[in-house]
Amino acid sequence: MAAAPEDPSLAELGEWQLIERLASFAPKGQFIDDAALLSATGTLVVDTDVLVEGVHFSGATAGAFDVGWRAAAANLSDLAAMGCREAQGITVGLVSPGETRWSWVEGVYSGFQACLERYGGVLLGGDCSAGMQRVLAVTALGRLPSGRTGQALPIRRQDGRPGDLLVSSGAHGLSALGLALLQGSAEVDRSLLAQPLIERAIARHQRPSPRFDAVQQLEGSRPAGMSWRAAGTDSSDGLVAAATAIARASGCRAVLDQQHLPIDPAMAHLPQAQEWCLYGGEDFELVLALEASWASALVAVLAGSSLIGRLEKADSTTREPFGWLHADHPKASGREGYQHYKHCAANAP
Amino acid sequence: MAAAPEDPSLAELGEWQLIERLASFAPKGQFIDDAALLSATGTLVVDTDVLVEGVHFSGATAGAFDVGWRAAAANLSDLAAMGCREAQGITVGLVSPGETRWSWVEGVYSGFQACLERYGGVLLGGDCSAGMQRVLAVTALGRLPSGRTGQALPIRRQDGRPGDLLVSSGAHGLSALGLALLQGSAEVDRSLLAQPLIERAIARHQRPSPRFDAVQQLEGSRPAGMSWRAAGTDSSDGLVAAATAIARASGCRAVLDQQHLPIDPAMAHLPQAQEWCLYGGEDFELVLALEASWASALVAVLAGSSLIGRLEKADSTTREPFGWLHADHPKASGREGYQHYKHCAANAP
Repeated sequence: MAAAPEDPSLAELGEWQLIERLASFAPKGQFIDDAALLSATGTLVVDTDVLVEGVHFSGATAGAFDVGWRAAAANLSDLAAMGCREAQGITVGLVSPGETRWSWVEGVYSGFQACLERYGGVLLGGDCSAGMQRVLAVTALGRLPSGRTGQALPIRRQDGRPGDLLVSSGAHGLSALGLALLQGSAEVDRSLLAQPLIERAIARHQRPSPRFDAVQQLEGSRPAGMSWRAAGTDSSDGLVAAATAIARASGCRAVLDQQHLPIDPAMAHLPQAQEWCLYGGEDFELVLALEASWASALVAVLAGSSLIGRLEKADSTTREPFGWLHADHPKASGREGYQHYKHCAANAP
Repeated sequence: MAAAPEDPSLAELGEWQLIERLASFAPKGQFIDDAALLSATGTLVVDTDVLVEGVHFSGATAGAFDVGWRAAAANLSDLAAMGCREAQGITVGLVSPGETRWSWVEGVYSGFQACLERYGGVLLGGDCSAGMQRVLAVTALGRLPSGRTGQALPIRRQDGRPGDLLVSSGAHGLSALGLALLQGSAEVDRSLLAQPLIERAIARHQRPSPRFDAVQQLEGSRPAGMSWRAAGTDSSDGLVAAATAIARASGCRAVLDQQHLPIDPAMAHLPQAQEWCLYGGEDFELVLALEASWASALVAVLAGSSLIGRLEKADSTTREPFGWLHADHPKASGREGYQHYKHCAANAP
């Protein structure tokens, strides 16, 4: 590989290196998590997502209502991944060409509104401008709950410890199946799929749910006398990406148990099931690292959740933050998730 | 004019009609002001601006640092216009083509950082994505100060009353002159301009200041025993647009005194001085409507500020929210400010 040029393009940098560089303009530690905690208040959480037509959404696979729902849900999922139990609201920056019809905008905002009505919060404000390409910049605000003694109860990527068990709040891979179905991908053999699975997969892709309910159960299942320490993130970029993000921020190694992957039983027979479970992304589940007794208690009460692996001490030889337990065919670990700038460089119009 | 089609394009709607329609997705009253007040807390203020290359900024008139400074300053100005005395921070959604150089991004974020260091707040977080056109979506968070009895002290557009005097926190038109100079406009006769004026005009355009200092003075100048009621907005879209926005939200008529326009004395001899003062925009001053004794007290302590007119009862005949005092040549009142979508429709690539 060639040495990076002194002034690389963003495509050469890739999304993660870019974010690392952007983080140097913020106070230390501010860019580690799914969302930002305002230190002035201790409990206010803010998160911004940008969604670009052709990169994050497409008229071919999503109607306007679904674009709005997904944009709100993805952002609310980041609040849940920080420990919020509901949203306070969102602001929306809308960019679109002048020839865009009002009916499309109306559909998108109806999707925002429906998602907020379902999960809490209101449309707080925003801005709009003409531009060449449709862009939605959504900022969500939430507040952390407080424990019995008044302290905030955050979920942070960096709070994992060796020995913690990894919990997935639900099955992974369904969203990728839904997307493949919506795209009419030739890779998917529809004769292998029951109709209810098809409907669930498409619904999962079009109308994802932020897992505020799982955060609620998390506090409810905390063993008596155990102090609050919950590491976690959401699986928007895929299950392996989520586990790796926790491991990296916590200075540990995440080990996934290949015999206990959270694959939906109804799609386990598909040839892509494991691939989509690990790397598909956009399932918007929570991946948590908790002390063993807390993890077991949570899995006992949260329907659909399961233990999927554990955190170990960082491997001093390889420094690889990710590994496998019970792996017959270990996956190459170079692949972690979706990188927008590299993707775009390869597919730029 | 043809009747609006059932499903108009955004260019046909124009920015203000579009915002009116978007407001129907938010709680009543939420879209009236420069920024949103989170009702759950009473004092938290949030505001989102989108800036699009070719619409809000251009490589021809702004270096990367200035793009970042201006984006932050414009957003912080909205916080000041709500009554905040400093910012808590911003999040940034960055969209740019993959071939964008890191040096440009670095310049923009250096501009954000410098503006935040000057006026308070930090970079809290954000997101980035590839896209066809550079877009910055900036969300600023601030907190309202509290009065002696603990109540929040907001500045709201809707709080004006007939009889209030209109105050401008500073001169208007300098930013438009700066822009014309940066664009090398043939309209500007440089031989009419002293060098210090040229420098001030360019600085005003490139590095505008959110008027947190004026908000500070506002509270300081409140006459003893007078309860808090301050109407206002910033003049990002121009002086007439600001006065009209207050008048409309307050159900009044704004009357500007043509003999007391806040024109910078050094540029008063220019043929465009009045036009730029009234409609130029981007001076980011505050325009306030206050009880007469408070307005006079503020002008006495705030250097550069002046009384520019007053609010009157709404004109029941014309329902026109804007008018003139001492106007030799009344301006057509159809022109209020800059409309992005209409602009774009005429100039779309």
